[in-house]
Amino acid sequence: MASLVGNALIGQSGGPTCVINQSLVGIVEEALSKREIKNVWGAVHGIKGVLEERLIDLGRETKETLEAVAVTPAAALRSVRKKPTREECEKALAIFKAHDVRYFFYIGGNDSAETAHLLNELAVAQGYELRLFHVPKTIDNDLRVTDHCPGYGSAAKFVACATAGDDLDNRSLPGIKVNVVMGRNAGWLTAATVLARQRDEDGPHLVYVPERSFSLDAFVGDVDRVFKKLGRCVVSVSEGVHTADGKLLLESKEIDSHGNVQLSGSGALGDHLADVIKKRLGEKLRVRADTFGYLQRSFAGVWSEVDAAEAREVGRTAVRNAVSGDRPHGSVVMKRLASGKDYRVSFEVAALENVAKVTRPMEPHFLAGDNGVTDAFHEYARPLVGKLPTLGRLSDLPIRR
Amino acid sequence: MASLVGNALIGQSGGPTCVINQSLVGIVEEALSKREIKNVWGAVHGIKGVLEERLIDLGRETKETLEAVAVTPAAALRSVRKKPTREECEKALAIFKAHDVRYFFYIGGNDSAETAHLLNELAVAQGYELRLFHVPKTIDNDLRVTDHCPGYGSAAKFVACATAGDDLDNRSLPGIKVNVVMGRNAGWLTAATVLARQRDEDGPHLVYVPERSFSLDAFVGDVDRVFKKLGRCVVSVSEGVHTADGKLLLESKEIDSHGNVQLSGSGALGDHLADVIKKRLGEKLRVRADTFGYLQRSFAGVWSEVDAAEAREVGRTAVRNAVSGDRPHGSVVMKRLASGKDYRVSFEVAALENVAKVTRPMEPHFLAGDNGVTDAFHEYARPLVGKLPTLGRLSDLPIRR
Repeated sequence: MASLVGNALIGQSGGPTCVINQSLVGIVEEALSKREIKNVWGAVHGIKGVLEERLIDLGRETKETLEAVAVTPAAALRSVRKKPTREECEKALAIFKAHDVRYFFYIGGNDSAETAHLLNELAVAQGYELRLFHVPKTIDNDLRVTDHCPGYGSAAKFVACATAGDDLDNRSLPGIKVNVVMGRNAGWLTAATVLARQRDEDGPHLVYVPERSFSLDAFVGDVDRVFKKLGRCVVSVSEGVHTADGKLLLESKEIDSHGNVQLSGSGALGDHLADVIKKRLGEKLRVRADTFGYLQRSFAGVWSEVDAAEAREVGRTAVRNAVSGDRPHGSVVMKRLASGKDYRVSFEVAALENVAKVTRPMEPHFLAGDNGVTDAFHEYARPLVGKLPTLGRLSDLPIRR
Repeated sequence: MASLVGNALIGQSGGPTCVINQSLVGIVEEALSKREIKNVWGAVHGIKGVLEERLIDLGRETKETLEAVAVTPAAALRSVRKKPTREECEKALAIFKAHDVRYFFYIGGNDSAETAHLLNELAVAQGYELRLFHVPKTIDNDLRVTDHCPGYGSAAKFVACATAGDDLDNRSLPGIKVNVVMGRNAGWLTAATVLARQRDEDGPHLVYVPERSFSLDAFVGDVDRVFKKLGRCVVSVSEGVHTADGKLLLESKEIDSHGNVQLSGSGALGDHLADVIKKRLGEKLRVRADTFGYLQRSFAGVWSEVDAAEAREVGRTAVRNAVSGDRPHGSVVMKRLASGKDYRVSFEVAALENVAKVTRPMEPHFLAGDNGVTDAFHEYARPLVGKLPTLGRLSDLPIRR
């Protein structure tokens, strides 16, 4: 395809991750190396920044600043949760034309892929040549086509470390502990709480994900069984668990413009489950609940080195494909070439419409019954979190009298 | 003083920390090097394990196991929340005599110091020669006499990293964010959420501690003022905040045998504050609350290297003093010799009764008004958390048209 000369614009959208800025920096450094790209700009707060023409120059940032930004959590360009209307898409495209923006990279999840798809359809309809890429990120890991999503490995490492430490805390002071994990549609992140387990008796002992319907009776029965056996019980529950009729356990009234209910930023689900356990199993039991909350996606200084490197490469891949023009638009996906110790992936391009809107649940072979995960899930997820801390334990040797 | 030959016993008590096992290993390695100490044993679950004679041999653990345990969060010996009765103290002492325990080290907070004090008083009254040390730990940093407590620096690092990341997340998707931090009697840990701030506009913008009485009206007014100025607001609130009449904002009915109310393990306080903000400032505002919960004291893989080294040395110091007999019983305290870049401490011994029971609030010169901390607090706390992650930010340079 003929080369296309113009300016490049980057936006970040949706809930940020710890490595979303790796993708940003990957795009910037690759774009700066291409003679087809005149300027590399950022839109502040994603599509909202495009519409308000809040554009900043990324090409003039120092290498040092960019590398510091790459290891900093949250969206350096700032983010937005907004699905543009048809009129807003037209306005955005007019702004692209006015600024000779010929390359647009939108870093985000499936909602952002939808925004990218809408803009692309309109550009095609208007005959405006635009190379447009969705660059995936999401701690939820719920994008289709790709093996896994940049952002997931780091969040998975966080929840694995949090759960392993919390399980040891619960071993110190035994009781029942409920931990609520992010993931409104899929259980990928909740399932990852198992990844630092070392022994059979280690928690989490029970894992509940939205892919299985949730019954309070079964839940209380499961907890009671584990508690009677081990004298303690650590539970991981996805914020998105719902009953057999599809209702979320706790429905909130706050809904964003993509139609998503607010689940995070509240301890209500965990507190509710702790209350139910106490009421049914005994008010004197030591029952605690924590909601891991925003720390899962924003904690400063903890990330998966594998995830960080992949997030960077996903950004670079988008630019390479956009500039070569072989695939003028699409979403970057990873294909797994090998697992285990030889783990590696290739970076490819999928059609936008195959990534947008619809989310990907955990496949059945990753789930064990209604409250656990399989070895296949361990094999899938373990390489993504990189190095985990070494945890030691006393041997509890008898004393010699 | 004459040398005393016998066995050494170690217990861990109260809420664990990320470095409480550093103190354990410090005691074990120092005790193993002393010819006066025949065996080094651990009591499983603290004083409860003593009473049940659940003793394990620590002297036969490998160096490798001990070093792995040292960097593992939570109490490797397992913990307990229990204040022994007079009868139980007598029973414990009888067990010490039966096993020729002449050295007892109890790692814990002020409640554990009280237990140690009770045991010591009884040993003195009975004329049983016992070298008995309280080895301090608490993320709350609320022990008297010592400059600061082992465990605080690591928890302070955790909440500083959590808040810095969360603040960037809030900068990405602006709104009002309330973070609830542990500390039932003192605001030390809540105050530490400021330690990774880099710029004036960085959060946390407001900090509420139990040392100042809390008014919902003032709180809402403060949040409104910051939000109007910055378009967002990140707040740190101690779980122990209370109104002017001394009542906790949310009282729970669960009380342990030391008379402590259960505050942690519930999202109720954060959710309540978020609700109040929405009701008074507008239901459409994006308001979120997180309760940092048990992650503050148990997250695997994040600790302050300064705190870890001090926790180890505090354990060693207890053994050295116990064996030399110059101070046959007491609590190990740290005295600060220099602050800033030259930060260093000495390790000394205080009387048990000066550390037990009563807690230490933040001194007034660390607090700025009702909702902030002073530079003096930064100077005090910054050396304790060790290395913090580098956080980068874009320069937001204008584009050239």
